[in-house]
Amino acid sequence: VTLPHGDALEAAAREKVSPSTYAFYSGGSGPGRSIADNVDAWSRWYLRPRALVDVSKISTKTTVLGAEIDLPVLIAPCGFNVLAHPDAEVAVARAAAAAGTIHVLSTASSIEYDEVIKATDSPTWLQLYTDPDHGVTDARVDAARDLGFTAIAVTVDSPIAGMRDWDSFGADMLAELQRLGSRMPSVNFEATLDWDEIDRIAARSGLPVLLKGVLHPADAAEAARRGLAGVIVSNHGGRQVDGTLPPALALPDVVEAAGDDVEVYVDGGVRRGEDVLRALALGARAVLIGRPYLWALAVAGEAGVTELLGRMRLELEQAMALAGQTDATDVAGDIVVRA
Amino acid sequence: VTLPHGDALEAAAREKVSPSTYAFYSGGSGPGRSIADNVDAWSRWYLRPRALVDVSKISTKTTVLGAEIDLPVLIAPCGFNVLAHPDAEVAVARAAAAAGTIHVLSTASSIEYDEVIKATDSPTWLQLYTDPDHGVTDARVDAARDLGFTAIAVTVDSPIAGMRDWDSFGADMLAELQRLGSRMPSVNFEATLDWDEIDRIAARSGLPVLLKGVLHPADAAEAARRGLAGVIVSNHGGRQVDGTLPPALALPDVVEAAGDDVEVYVDGGVRRGEDVLRALALGARAVLIGRPYLWALAVAGEAGVTELLGRMRLELEQAMALAGQTDATDVAGDIVVRA
Amino acid sequence: VTLPHGDALEAAAREKVSPSTYAFYSGGSGPGRSIADNVDAWSRWYLRPRALVDVSKISTKTTVLGAEIDLPVLIAPCGFNVLAHPDAEVAVARAAAAAGTIHVLSTASSIEYDEVIKATDSPTWLQLYTDPDHGVTDARVDAARDLGFTAIAVTVDSPIAGMRDWDSFGADMLAELQRLGSRMPSVNFEATLDWDEIDRIAARSGLPVLLKGVLHPADAAEAARRGLAGVIVSNHGGRQVDGTLPPALALPDVVEAAGDDVEVYVDGGVRRGEDVLRALALGARAVLIGRPYLWALAVAGEAGVTELLGRMRLELEQAMALAGQTDATDVAGDIVVRA
Amino acid sequence: VTLPHGDALEAAAREKVSPSTYAFYSGGSGPGRSIADNVDAWSRWYLRPRALVDVSKISTKTTVLGAEIDLPVLIAPCGFNVLAHPDAEVAVARAAAAAGTIHVLSTASSIEYDEVIKATDSPTWLQLYTDPDHGVTDARVDAARDLGFTAIAVTVDSPIAGMRDWDSFGADMLAELQRLGSRMPSVNFEATLDWDEIDRIAARSGLPVLLKGVLHPADAAEAARRGLAGVIVSNHGGRQVDGTLPPALALPDVVEAAGDDVEVYVDGGVRRGEDVLRALALGARAVLIGRPYLWALAVAGEAGVTELLGRMRLELEQAMALAGQTDATDVAGDIVVRA
Repeated sequence: VTLPHGDALEAAAREKVSPSTYAFYSGGSGPGRSIADNVDAWSRWYLRPRALVDVSKISTKTTVLGAEIDLPVLIAPCGFNVLAHPDAEVAVARAAAAAGTIHVLSTASSIEYDEVIKATDSPTWLQLYTDPDHGVTDARVDAARDLGFTAIAVTVDSPIAGMRDWDSFGADMLAELQRLGSRMPSVNFEATLDWDEIDRIAARSGLPVLLKGVLHPADAAEAARRGLAGVIVSNHGGRQVDGTLPPALALPDVVEAAGDDVEVYVDGGVRRGEDVLRALALGARAVLIGRPYLWALAVAGEAGVTELLGRMRLELEQAMALAGQTDATDVAGDIVVRA
Repeated sequence: VTLPHGDALEAAAREKVSPSTYAFYSGGSGPGRSIADNVDAWSRWYLRPRALVDVSKISTKTTVLGAEIDLPVLIAPCGFNVLAHPDAEVAVARAAAAAGTIHVLSTASSIEYDEVIKATDSPTWLQLYTDPDHGVTDARVDAARDLGFTAIAVTVDSPIAGMRDWDSFGADMLAELQRLGSRMPSVNFEATLDWDEIDRIAARSGLPVLLKGVLHPADAAEAARRGLAGVIVSNHGGRQVDGTLPPALALPDVVEAAGDDVEVYVDGGVRRGEDVLRALALGARAVLIGRPYLWALAVAGEAGVTELLGRMRLELEQAMALAGQTDATDVAGDIVVRA
Repeated sequence: VTLPHGDALEAAAREKVSPSTYAFYSGGSGPGRSIADNVDAWSRWYLRPRALVDVSKISTKTTVLGAEIDLPVLIAPCGFNVLAHPDAEVAVARAAAAAGTIHVLSTASSIEYDEVIKATDSPTWLQLYTDPDHGVTDARVDAARDLGFTAIAVTVDSPIAGMRDWDSFGADMLAELQRLGSRMPSVNFEATLDWDEIDRIAARSGLPVLLKGVLHPADAAEAARRGLAGVIVSNHGGRQVDGTLPPALALPDVVEAAGDDVEVYVDGGVRRGEDVLRALALGARAVLIGRPYLWALAVAGEAGVTELLGRMRLELEQAMALAGQTDATDVAGDIVVRA
Repeated sequence: VTLPHGDALEAAAREKVSPSTYAFYSGGSGPGRSIADNVDAWSRWYLRPRALVDVSKISTKTTVLGAEIDLPVLIAPCGFNVLAHPDAEVAVARAAAAAGTIHVLSTASSIEYDEVIKATDSPTWLQLYTDPDHGVTDARVDAARDLGFTAIAVTVDSPIAGMRDWDSFGADMLAELQRLGSRMPSVNFEATLDWDEIDRIAARSGLPVLLKGVLHPADAAEAARRGLAGVIVSNHGGRQVDGTLPPALALPDVVEAAGDDVEVYVDGGVRRGEDVLRALALGARAVLIGRPYLWALAVAGEAGVTELLGRMRLELEQAMALAGQTDATDVAGDIVVRA
């Protein structure tokens, strides 16, 4: 297959999915300003390449939580991939594994966790929605540990459901999920989720814990004090509260506050390899992509996601070469300039 | 009823009112640039949420001039509500009371003040247009005191009529008001209104006095020196002079100048709960909404205003929860960042 | 008559004049970016009104070069007013006199200077295009002195013709001028015009000399050192070189450099009384208007210009009142804030 | 001939060339944002003219690498000019010579280098794409030296091909080139190109060496340390990696870092004489133009390029005169102000 680029990819995916799925995937909170802001914000960091560097060998390898990966572009956790394609999370896991990167499986996977994890030999993280019933949380945490997930990314930007003006998950979506034979975990947002519960999850799981959905540097600093493994700078794809600081602009302060011991990731609006390079220059260890992989999955299943990750790898390699950067773990900070 | 959102609400209201009423409500001074500026300016403050705060209990309660209210969203004083709906100011008063907030009744109420005040048990403020004839001013002040209004908000941005290129209050509007049986107070702008007259009003009324229409920090500082109760940062909905500093941008300097003893309120362009949160983060005690309640009133009368206030409360609670803020009286200033 | 506002005024005028006249009046240099920039730049200064000032008496009076005028809005020198209306510069002079302001007559007046000057008893300035033939310059200077002009405004932004991509003054315009019986002075730009020639003109004329077309503060400083009477901040209506600093943005630095002894004026993009107030707040003594008076003249002759000046006076008075400013000679600088 | 201006010139050229040629010439990398950015960035430097300077004599002469030229507007190296016009690089060389400026011939000239160089008596530079096979590089360097090119501009922003989403050089273009009888050098990008290879080229050629495609000041500083002749600030017309710092904004830092011994040139988005003046004010010794000359060549061959250069000279002279600048080698830095 050959995936269309940019907006054309979204348009092609829209043809493949139900209207309610498209609305669910593409929509955001409130007036939806953050969805465009997330994308635009990356371009507010001008690239300023270095010249005359030997770029015959470009390494996009890096380590995440000590594990080596080939591409600093992770699959962000998105729920119910079966809405995009019948192969769902298994297809995504295989594509991520083939690309040598990490699949962050959503709590709301449409396929049982063990099926997904067995589909590949690659390290996989579990995104965790905690539950007001800590027994439910514990069952997820234990499953993560027992099934061999290598890290837990706890979503911390969703103590309540997002502020959607439209009904983002109505009866027609439930019917569609049922018809598609989806596993249907109930996500119950936990308004009391706090730092101590994070500590408890970390202790119980024995796994590295990342916080997904950090925008404020004070939270990154607290993560460092608590000895957490990482933070993912994110505004949940503009789906929780509209009008937040875009991740691309929040990133530098978070990196500074996180210090050397907390790994910083970022998602939101990353569309091209150039954006990945910007994120690395600003101090992120890797990015995550959400909607782009859903569109690719909808258009062409596993092959689509594979092509997308291959394209992003190629773009990142090209952007690195053209910016005089050879090593994804050592991108110079001064190759980006605020517009 | 279910109110439409955003621009769709205004469009729905437009269907309900006469063209001249729509022009009167929606219009601004000069080229009308401030109307859009007022709204846009709020989004120039990016939200930067805190995470991992227990937000199971969100309190939108606050005190205004010592009185507890449930929602820091007051009803701004707008004249002649009968143009929007026959139940007019009585409907609005009831909706405000039901929402546990303050109705700021306009001098130009289309219903007699006592009828409005008797419609609820809730504290109500009177917006005061002073009159060149101080006897008229005094009659209004005495009525405020005798009828049980709990505060007077003196409009200070209107020493003369607004600079409207179009005839905002022509013969057809007068005819419409007469036909609708409106009380028809004559508003005569007082060009000589000054600080001493404010002192005189405060003394005569024995009521807390707020200044409505402050944009300059020096005026907030003078209000503090005079021991006034509060200031309302406002450019009169963009209806007096076009091209002013939008209230969302004027707010921080006014808050700083006002000090601890003068309560600061803000109106202009507040459309969603996220904007309310921004205002609180910037130091406002509460916001006031004008056009949105007129549109809701036009669309569905008291029930419309009730729904609007309910929605704004829900949005504020959601935005607070998603920003890790639990108490409307103690919103952190660093959850907003200038774009 | 009742003049349309804003763009509608220009559209109405366009109906009245020949296409080549419209192109000549409305056009600018190069891509024409400065024409819009000039207007937009004023709105980049937000107004921040003062409240509770007795504004029952507003004085728009000021002095220009020691002479009292009623309105700090002067008529900018524009050539060949006969193209707009047969009464041409005489109509304009009368309207300016009636408004109590200054008419700055263009060297390229379509009516003989003495006819224009005799049309009123009011002080009139002559705009001077110097000539490579100093005999021609001297004849104009002597005429200025002998006919009773009270000041000379030497254009200093036109050592050569403007960079117009289109032929701004072709054969059809010459034919039209001839048909209309215009006086047809030949304007020959003087590339060698320098400070010494300015000194010579000042000495020969015995009149106060202003420099029209200053954008750089260093030129204002030099004007102060030479003891000149004033500078007019202007980019020639965007007609000389495109992409200059808009006068509204150049003004503050020029005011600072000019010091106390050189009066500073400004033209370019002033469209409403609010803009005049901004200019006064930024330190200008008065503004000049060009295209707006040409459009008014085209639409309704002398009455049109009279209405325009009356409207601008009303708007200025209103804007002053609403900003808490009572005296055009003493407008507070802190009522404007950069956007 | 009379060339259209601005976008109309591009539109006229588009009529003359094949669709694939138009795509090749007009296209950029990625989403193509840099193409518009490059042009817009110049206008973000407002001009702030000086007045009352004798501008009767304007000199656009300057020296480049010690050689006097009449116009600081060089012809940027663009490949395969035969696609625009059968007279191709010979036409361009003649037009450049007639204008008294430098033709920088592309490695990918469609006409043999010696034919081009023999077409005029003027100094000509050779743009050099180095090759992974240093024998190929050496052959080009030796040809440059032996044929009498006076400098070598080594492209340093292309260690790999540009990131074009579209196929910028497909089979149809190769067929078109063959049909047109073009010389068809194979450009093989050299990913290992580094500073030492630059030193080697400089030593072997004995010619002054410039680096084409510098955006980062650190690279200009290194060029100074290595004793190179010059740097050309460029993002390759937005054709390598999208979203870079536009040359107009990168220029000042590069000028500062380059110091006194390295000449700084700039290309990208220069469209008018005013842009040339801005570049000179910001410290560039000259600019290069790419797409504009290709469009002119397509529209009218040598005469078109001659007219274009004549127009740019006229515009530069006019802009200099109107900005009070008489000497292209001594343009004041304070006549530009950042918007």
